[in-house]
Amino acid sequence: MYLNGVEIEETFAEAFTMRGTRVTITAVNETWARHAALAATGFATSVIGCGVEAGIEGPTASTPDGRFGLDCLFFAFSKEDMEKYLIKRIGQAIMTAPTSACFDGELPEFQGQGDTLNKVNIGGKLRFFGDSYQASKVIGNQRYWRIPVMDGEFLVQEEFTVAKAIGGGNFLILAKSAEAALLASEAAVEAMRTIRGVILPFPGGVVRSGSQVGSNYKFLSASTNTAYCPTIRGRLGNSLLPDGVNAVLEIVIDGLTFEAVSRAMQVGINAATQVQGVQRITAGNYGGRLGKHHFHLKEILI
Amino acid sequence: MYLNGVEIEETFAEAFTMRGTRVTITAVNETWARHAALAATGFATSVIGCGVEAGIEGPTASTPDGRFGLDCLFFAFSKEDMEKYLIKRIGQAIMTAPTSACFDGELPEFQGQGDTLNKVNIGGKLRFFGDSYQASKVIGNQRYWRIPVMDGEFLVQEEFTVAKAIGGGNFLILAKSAEAALLASEAAVEAMRTIRGVILPFPGGVVRSGSQVGSNYKFLSASTNTAYCPTIRGRLGNSLLPDGVNAVLEIVIDGLTFEAVSRAMQVGINAATQVQGVQRITAGNYGGRLGKHHFHLKEILI
Amino acid sequence: MYLNGVEIEETFAEAFTMRGTRVTITAVNETWARHAALAATGFATSVIGCGVEAGIEGPTASTPDGRFGLDCLFFAFSKEDMEKYLIKRIGQAIMTAPTSACFDGELPEFQGQGDTLNKVNIGGKLRFFGDSYQASKVIGNQRYWRIPVMDGEFLVQEEFTVAKAIGGGNFLILAKSAEAALLASEAAVEAMRTIRGVILPFPGGVVRSGSQVGSNYKFLSASTNTAYCPTIRGRLGNSLLPDGVNAVLEIVIDGLTFEAVSRAMQVGINAATQVQGVQRITAGNYGGRLGKHHFHLKEILI
Amino acid sequence: MYLNGVEIEETFAEAFTMRGTRVTITAVNETWARHAALAATGFATSVIGCGVEAGIEGPTASTPDGRFGLDCLFFAFSKEDMEKYLIKRIGQAIMTAPTSACFDGELPEFQGQGDTLNKVNIGGKLRFFGDSYQASKVIGNQRYWRIPVMDGEFLVQEEFTVAKAIGGGNFLILAKSAEAALLASEAAVEAMRTIRGVILPFPGGVVRSGSQVGSNYKFLSASTNTAYCPTIRGRLGNSLLPDGVNAVLEIVIDGLTFEAVSRAMQVGINAATQVQGVQRITAGNYGGRLGKHHFHLKEILI
Repeated sequence: MYLNGVEIEETFAEAFTMRGTRVTITAVNETWARHAALAATGFATSVIGCGVEAGIEGPTASTPDGRFGLDCLFFAFSKEDMEKYLIKRIGQAIMTAPTSACFDGELPEFQGQGDTLNKVNIGGKLRFFGDSYQASKVIGNQRYWRIPVMDGEFLVQEEFTVAKAIGGGNFLILAKSAEAALLASEAAVEAMRTIRGVILPFPGGVVRSGSQVGSNYKFLSASTNTAYCPTIRGRLGNSLLPDGVNAVLEIVIDGLTFEAVSRAMQVGINAATQVQGVQRITAGNYGGRLGKHHFHLKEILI
Repeated sequence: MYLNGVEIEETFAEAFTMRGTRVTITAVNETWARHAALAATGFATSVIGCGVEAGIEGPTASTPDGRFGLDCLFFAFSKEDMEKYLIKRIGQAIMTAPTSACFDGELPEFQGQGDTLNKVNIGGKLRFFGDSYQASKVIGNQRYWRIPVMDGEFLVQEEFTVAKAIGGGNFLILAKSAEAALLASEAAVEAMRTIRGVILPFPGGVVRSGSQVGSNYKFLSASTNTAYCPTIRGRLGNSLLPDGVNAVLEIVIDGLTFEAVSRAMQVGINAATQVQGVQRITAGNYGGRLGKHHFHLKEILI
Repeated sequence: MYLNGVEIEETFAEAFTMRGTRVTITAVNETWARHAALAATGFATSVIGCGVEAGIEGPTASTPDGRFGLDCLFFAFSKEDMEKYLIKRIGQAIMTAPTSACFDGELPEFQGQGDTLNKVNIGGKLRFFGDSYQASKVIGNQRYWRIPVMDGEFLVQEEFTVAKAIGGGNFLILAKSAEAALLASEAAVEAMRTIRGVILPFPGGVVRSGSQVGSNYKFLSASTNTAYCPTIRGRLGNSLLPDGVNAVLEIVIDGLTFEAVSRAMQVGINAATQVQGVQRITAGNYGGRLGKHHFHLKEILI
Repeated sequence: MYLNGVEIEETFAEAFTMRGTRVTITAVNETWARHAALAATGFATSVIGCGVEAGIEGPTASTPDGRFGLDCLFFAFSKEDMEKYLIKRIGQAIMTAPTSACFDGELPEFQGQGDTLNKVNIGGKLRFFGDSYQASKVIGNQRYWRIPVMDGEFLVQEEFTVAKAIGGGNFLILAKSAEAALLASEAAVEAMRTIRGVILPFPGGVVRSGSQVGSNYKFLSASTNTAYCPTIRGRLGNSLLPDGVNAVLEIVIDGLTFEAVSRAMQVGINAATQVQGVQRITAGNYGGRLGKHHFHLKEILI
């Protein structure tokens, strides 16, 4: 299959079931909402190394307090991990930020599928920071905590919603040069940022140190994805780099639903293939043995 | 004492001895150096909650590979912690970023004080990711590792320098309104960003949830700094908020040397006091019992 | 009328009929589309002083060449002025920008109202820069010009659509302090940036040097809006500043349709009134004698 | 000559004598200083099409009012043009911006060369906007005007300094691909932004539509630089594109002094030649007949 003149490999991306939560951060203006969001979602590229994967999803359509808001998505291995890491990240990076408030972003994507949803207790634990001066109010069926801080109060919702979600959607951009791979990645990321329900956890949305399961070192369970490393292609028997390809970059996608990840992959691949020097698009999988979710490039792009 | 018509309290900021390292990140351009730097220094507001405190210090004057570079500073409790967290943060957030390389920023501030310096092994451990295809080269008396990745090679220095440094320098801005406190904080942060050798670990450089030692809850060792919380002043016998002050924000500074922290506090306080509505500047301390480094506002501002 | 506890004056904004055009700029990525858009829409705050009023409307939903795009809106006094200034601004600031292309953004807002639309010839005139090496192609019923430049070709549409549009929609934020007025303006601008079909031509979207018709100097036809200047209120008999108001900022809106300007004013006023220290919202008019379009605050906010 | 493995042509950039002025814009914080600076220096790529060439030089080391400041440089054909365009740009784009003030950036570069300096009257003319409510004060030997506006006062210096300066310094980056040319340009621009006394007037600092004197059309005096256009190389007898070069981008530099322009070219060329895929660096001239200032690449790079 060819898209915009670029070959699309007949393969699929293999992704995993994780737990996802949407956190809405509001502040007096976008600058300060963004400071809080960057701090809260920083150092969150890989659930193994960082505990969570996280990123800024985009501006909130309508916020509970009417102020500017940014939605952030967090992904963890389990509901328990989600609670543990959200308390840390909200307490260290959002509660500390001037003028901020923090709300359960809810998950309208899952409406009517209540059985896939859970709640974690965040505001109900952070409240003790208020040293007994905190207060709560209930609006609708939600409880909110008002914790006194030096510029007024930090308002935080008691419970946040956790849903079954998807981690590790991906595709790879194979290009003539590192420059073309980078510009194609930038174009893909910008297109994918318009899709809601997904985040790209790596720096700038792109990862260049793709990994393989296993290693020549027994004490390591993963190592660089040798088959895609251009500088060592001559030393390998199993390089997967076609002639004319001298650089590869990967886009990893975490999303709330299969549809959101599919749509993000679609617009990202479409944008990448419009950049000169891109030679091929492929995706990473483990033969279908490890991850429950399979994104076949051909089906996504139709 | 008055500065720009604003009262400066006769007090001091009390800060602690930590360990500090400068990490230089280079990339093909500023955009990608910044993506890596933001990811590596994200979620690093407090050493207790995040393991390290970190931030972007500024552009590198002259980089080993001649490309655009950003210096980042990391602060940890011990040399051992520094090694552990730097390996994680460089491996997860810098090695993964397209086109990046990572160098020991060295610490010219400490020239001739070799006894306060140590080395941690970073590249020497990350190299195993190369699955035996990595290579090293020695230039001068430094060893560098070249780890094959999908867009070429990740170049990382073997050892990084660790020095005794200072965490927790601070001052507080007391203002008529939350708006004035915020604008004064922004002005202070922008002025302080021009000073090298320091970073401001909190979101946007500012913290609004200052804390006190101890809590009304026995299971907590710290809580909100009640004496500076405006919404509960009427319920306290010991509020420290003067009449006319309705909001407080704090700037926390980590720095490599006493001089760098002093200079940052000086330009920050000077900038803050030029914003209308600022009523007073003070600083946080524990009576001098806990931290080794005392920054007397009066001495700093002369 | 009160909104979020803030008084809304019973008055209206008076705006004028202008000519508007949407220009879509695409480039290899957002960075370069934005460089071109900022240069093309810079120095365009007032049609009297700058020839056009212009701004970035937002990302393009779907671009003709599939790349990242930004929609910009330009407003001029007449169709003839629009042609003259667009040729200059596209030739100087978009054609010069690496990787850019430039398309008629069309005006779906006016579908079915063909009689209010005109065409100006842009690509048909810029093409001569190609020194006879330019080429054209027709797709659908549109002609495009390919002009050879040093990084390939500059693709520009021959004709751009011009519609009757609206300039000078506005509202004023009266606040307790300059700090509160500024933060409220920032909040308003961020909310209004989500509305399509409008731009805010002043720096950062805000104007602080509002003007009145006439002057104490005979050679000047306009001067500072004395009735809203806080520093001279004591010297005037006709100050319009209520007690407790010490600063005013104005948001000016140009838009393609009455509905778009109304909606932008609505979300902007709503956001501004949620910032502490805002005392009153009003709007500027000339008693209804000069401008054809009247935006009554009360009707807009219902 | 070779630099970082890239051929440097033995040629020179030919530049012209212009008039230059430094304008310092201060505001309550960097955000608002930047809004004003972007508006004031926008649409200023070419003195022929825009009246002035302008750009942001960088943060001000020490501002007259102690607030955050940005230095901007403006270049015009004559002292008279400078006065005319500065009044427009400061009046439309700086005076209008919330919290701004505007100062003569002085020109320490020319200390002791008083005969090359002139003054233009800016504040002395803008003051009439104050409708007789303006006031002046003299500090040292400088007069400043305080013009009442809606958020307080606009402070603007009466006179601004104009010096003989240099327009049209340049170099060209010849690369294997458009992608490599673009990344090399980005690297050059970032390096050059650290040099004071210069600005890069084109969008993002780069121009892709280089021009030649003369045209196949008699009514045009300039046209696309055909010899450097890759898409038409086969149709020309005089293409200057070497084999393997498929894209060219140009960096144009305006500067206050010969030394500043030289230094900017040096760091820019050095940065560009470190990007993979760059094949050659050259510069634009008219055989030395038109411009007074010649920048020989070989001399600059030694």
